[in-house]
Amino acid sequence: MTRHGTSKDQQLARLRRVEGQVRGIARMVEEDTYCIDVLTQVSAASRALQAVALGLLDDHLAHCVVEAARAGGPEQLAKLREANEAIARLVRS
Amino acid sequence: MTRHGTSKDQQLARLRRVEGQVRGIARMVEEDTYCIDVLTQVSAASRALQAVALGLLDDHLAHCVVEAARAGGPEQLAKLREANEAIARLVRS
Amino acid sequence: MTRHGTSKDQQLARLRRVEGQVRGIARMVEEDTYCIDVLTQVSAASRALQAVALGLLDDHLAHCVVEAARAGGPEQLAKLREANEAIARLVRS
Amino acid sequence: MTRHGTSKDQQLARLRRVEGQVRGIARMVEEDTYCIDVLTQVSAASRALQAVALGLLDDHLAHCVVEAARAGGPEQLAKLREANEAIARLVRS
Repeated sequence: MTRHGTSKDQQLARLRRVEGQVRGIARMVEEDTYCIDVLTQVSAASRALQAVALGLLDDHLAHCVVEAARAGGPEQLAKLREANEAIARLVRS
Repeated sequence: MTRHGTSKDQQLARLRRVEGQVRGIARMVEEDTYCIDVLTQVSAASRALQAVALGLLDDHLAHCVVEAARAGGPEQLAKLREANEAIARLVRS
Repeated sequence: MTRHGTSKDQQLARLRRVEGQVRGIARMVEEDTYCIDVLTQVSAASRALQAVALGLLDDHLAHCVVEAARAGGPEQLAKLREANEAIARLVRS
Repeated sequence: MTRHGTSKDQQLARLRRVEGQVRGIARMVEEDTYCIDVLTQVSAASRALQAVALGLLDDHLAHCVVEAARAGGPEQLAKLREANEAIARLVRS
């Protein structure tokens, strides 16, 4: 997949932020921070990871799935099945 | 969108089952069934609705998005944006 | 569990609304409504079911879990485990 | 809240694993790994974060909510409301 530089940089910036959030949560647990406050940060990190996933999926549909749709045939079927399975995993996680 | 008869029938059968599940949950609440047992049924109905949504999305990618990808241009952009927004709503609901 | 009349009525009203939403979705599929519009309604019904589940859980914590906490011992452990499992099913569905 | 040493250690171990997963995902994006493979890892990290959240919630119900239930009165109401809001955030994230 050829990804636009900006989109890739954005994804990396988001992932570095999520990594920082998870490290912050570990610190909160270590310092016995009040559970509910830790949970609020876990929810925020989960939503941030979700945004990363939706960004990757956008990219995937716009590039791989579009190319496969133009190619048609078994390539198209394979790519659609793969995309559908990834979406299902995301919806269920 | 032209949907295969079978797929449409399957979706309708699933939706009728979900409708029955929701009616069953109402009856459980009415009869003061133990909360946890009601919750188990609500989780089952939610998963069934999720399966309906994933089926609709499959269909949508295989027909509308594929057609738009072949057409290219603004049509393709519009359909991709629309699909991405529907996926995001689903992941977040 | 003794549930307040109002809360029970509210839950039943919500469930009747969800049932109507699901029936509406079936009608949309039957009439070949545009996929994305059907998906929007499925997301709305999912969120409504989620609200029902959160209401039931509220009730359950406020009554069964509180009573079990006052009783203590194995009753408390059993009720906590049950509540945790219901929450996990809900978070994962 | 006084948390058992083991439980706290378990949570910290899980969080360190999630941190490693997120760093691994960033590396995959950097190296232009195939989208679907990156998405699979994002789903795994999301589920791992969810397990952390469910563990924290277990702990919270077993300690804070149980204590508040025994104290009764406004303390109980406040803790229940707080727990319900945390569960709702979790279910919706």
